[in-house]
Amino acid sequence: MKVTLDDLPLRDDLRGKTPYGAPQLDVAVRLNTNENPYPPPPELVADVTAAAAAAAADLHRYPDRDATALRADLAAYLTGATGVPLTAENVWAANGSNEVLQQIMQAFGGPGRTAVGFEPSYSMHPIIAAGTRTEWLPAPRRADFAIDVDAAAALLRSTGPDITFLTSPNNPTGQSLEPAELAVLIDAAPGIVVVDEAYAEFSDRPGAVTLLDTHGHKLIVSRTMSKAFAFAGGRLGYLAAAPAVVDALQLVRLPYHLSALTQAAARASLRHAEATLGSVALLRHERDRVVDELRSAGYDVVPSDANFALFGAFTDAPRAWQAFLDRGVLIRDVGIPERLRVTVGTPEENDAFLAVATDLATKELA
Amino acid sequence: MKVTLDDLPLRDDLRGKTPYGAPQLDVAVRLNTNENPYPPPPELVADVTAAAAAAAADLHRYPDRDATALRADLAAYLTGATGVPLTAENVWAANGSNEVLQQIMQAFGGPGRTAVGFEPSYSMHPIIAAGTRTEWLPAPRRADFAIDVDAAAALLRSTGPDITFLTSPNNPTGQSLEPAELAVLIDAAPGIVVVDEAYAEFSDRPGAVTLLDTHGHKLIVSRTMSKAFAFAGGRLGYLAAAPAVVDALQLVRLPYHLSALTQAAARASLRHAEATLGSVALLRHERDRVVDELRSAGYDVVPSDANFALFGAFTDAPRAWQAFLDRGVLIRDVGIPERLRVTVGTPEENDAFLAVATDLATKELA
Repeated sequence: MKVTLDDLPLRDDLRGKTPYGAPQLDVAVRLNTNENPYPPPPELVADVTAAAAAAAADLHRYPDRDATALRADLAAYLTGATGVPLTAENVWAANGSNEVLQQIMQAFGGPGRTAVGFEPSYSMHPIIAAGTRTEWLPAPRRADFAIDVDAAAALLRSTGPDITFLTSPNNPTGQSLEPAELAVLIDAAPGIVVVDEAYAEFSDRPGAVTLLDTHGHKLIVSRTMSKAFAFAGGRLGYLAAAPAVVDALQLVRLPYHLSALTQAAARASLRHAEATLGSVALLRHERDRVVDELRSAGYDVVPSDANFALFGAFTDAPRAWQAFLDRGVLIRDVGIPERLRVTVGTPEENDAFLAVATDLATKELA
Repeated sequence: MKVTLDDLPLRDDLRGKTPYGAPQLDVAVRLNTNENPYPPPPELVADVTAAAAAAAADLHRYPDRDATALRADLAAYLTGATGVPLTAENVWAANGSNEVLQQIMQAFGGPGRTAVGFEPSYSMHPIIAAGTRTEWLPAPRRADFAIDVDAAAALLRSTGPDITFLTSPNNPTGQSLEPAELAVLIDAAPGIVVVDEAYAEFSDRPGAVTLLDTHGHKLIVSRTMSKAFAFAGGRLGYLAAAPAVVDALQLVRLPYHLSALTQAAARASLRHAEATLGSVALLRHERDRVVDELRSAGYDVVPSDANFALFGAFTDAPRAWQAFLDRGVLIRDVGIPERLRVTVGTPEENDAFLAVATDLATKELA
């Protein structure tokens, strides 16, 4: 029996949709998903392997449902990075920050509730809102992609969303917000504010964790090990918040959502944070070089506090994306007219990208 | 700033709820969560470790978003177990069957839609329904906990749920349904039917996979590696269905939901399926012994096709549960009056349990 999607009682709001995801292509230079280009060092691989071996011997048993040891390690890392004293009670973790965000929307969003995000931003925010039936209210950024803080605060006061998303540094544009700006926006927002800091380690600015003491009744800071920590394959997202927020999320989390292997591997990876994050300094240096050279080649580049840069302005961004791909460089068309996003790679990858970018500048720019 | 749950804008339907989960206690004999009591054999541990080592070297990259190789392996396993030809296109996988079920409810349930389950059954079904805002309609079983197929078919025709859950073997009672019975119920149900076969390997009966060819326009068969496969710590649930169902679930799945380590470890574990499933024959034998001895001690025991047994009738089930725990045996109070559920363990664990059960029979039975 041949069954098609039209034969199935799919929800009406899903009909005609396509799955989220960048093309996973086998290209020499992959600069499309903001991964850390440096493989885990051998001593980290060895430690993850040993942790996996220990976990494997007990795989017939369910994992620690509360992931307490991992959460304590994440809290210790955040305390070291921010100076803010945190414990396992302040931290929650899940399979990637996408699952963290989904749990937040299940607990504080859902049918009859609204969420605001300032677009363009991380495109999963509205998708997860839809998946939890939270009404998504897109709000604008300025023409230069920065947030107009006064206008944004006024908008939050007038629309009164249940959840506000602030992405800092913002993906896919790259700018971050100062703590003082975040505080203005959190004060203006009536409900929960999620500051999505997936790229925090690439920025000099102190993050929103420093605001937890004063704004913990509404602030959730979302983080990930996918980017700076070079752990995209391990899928570990987490958040810092008041312990009551963590209590709330435990009401909606699926039990045993984090496998014993994930917990063990993430803990092993955190033990090597210093070495892994050592690559971040190099990537920041390379980011500044890539931005400078793109500008020298004639491109307009959004200032970036992250490990990627949004650049243009192309006459036809999809055609320019294909031109890069045809020359062996996979970057990202994030759907912003005239712009493309490039992830900062190794110096060699960046050289390869910049050579193509320079070559294409005269042909593809508007 | 001290923040309490009452200070947070939690959804009203979550207020006063407590997180799902059996107590995770450090007790000598743990027979409460239907795990396979046999640790993975050394050669499986070695293979999982090698797979983790290979995956760890590439952890800075996102995993295969579609988990294609793992899905092909799961399809091959199911084809071998059932004789039904399946490919990766028929299979979907996620972090435990809970996530599989959540994705099903996101795609086919949700606000304005209903789901029916025949209770008592797996207690996560109504919880996941609530988490996806699917209206849960509990339907009854007979006094002996079996499904009255004619009455159930009539109920499905009259209530017309969008999703019907049939758990076979049923947790926490143990009985399974024949394919002919399943077919009657699927024909009666107007919407999607999920046959939750978490315990399929412990049953002699052919499972619902044999019905996919005729009922693929509405049938989803849910499975897990947590039980017979001794992979509870690895968190791998999956399903078999028409390829269009898999297409539908890709519209709601979080991208990169399955880590590279999970995919690699599950594939390694599947390579040892024959050895792991060898323990199932022993567990079935032990199950029959446990049921027989409980009956000899005076207990009423529900016939079981799974790796657990529901028994009683206790005057006070919570007090009896505590009496078992006080004697070093952790079993499960699943909330059914006068009944407790025991997982089948190793012969030594079962001996320890049966000794306590025999001792308590005269004191705790109604």
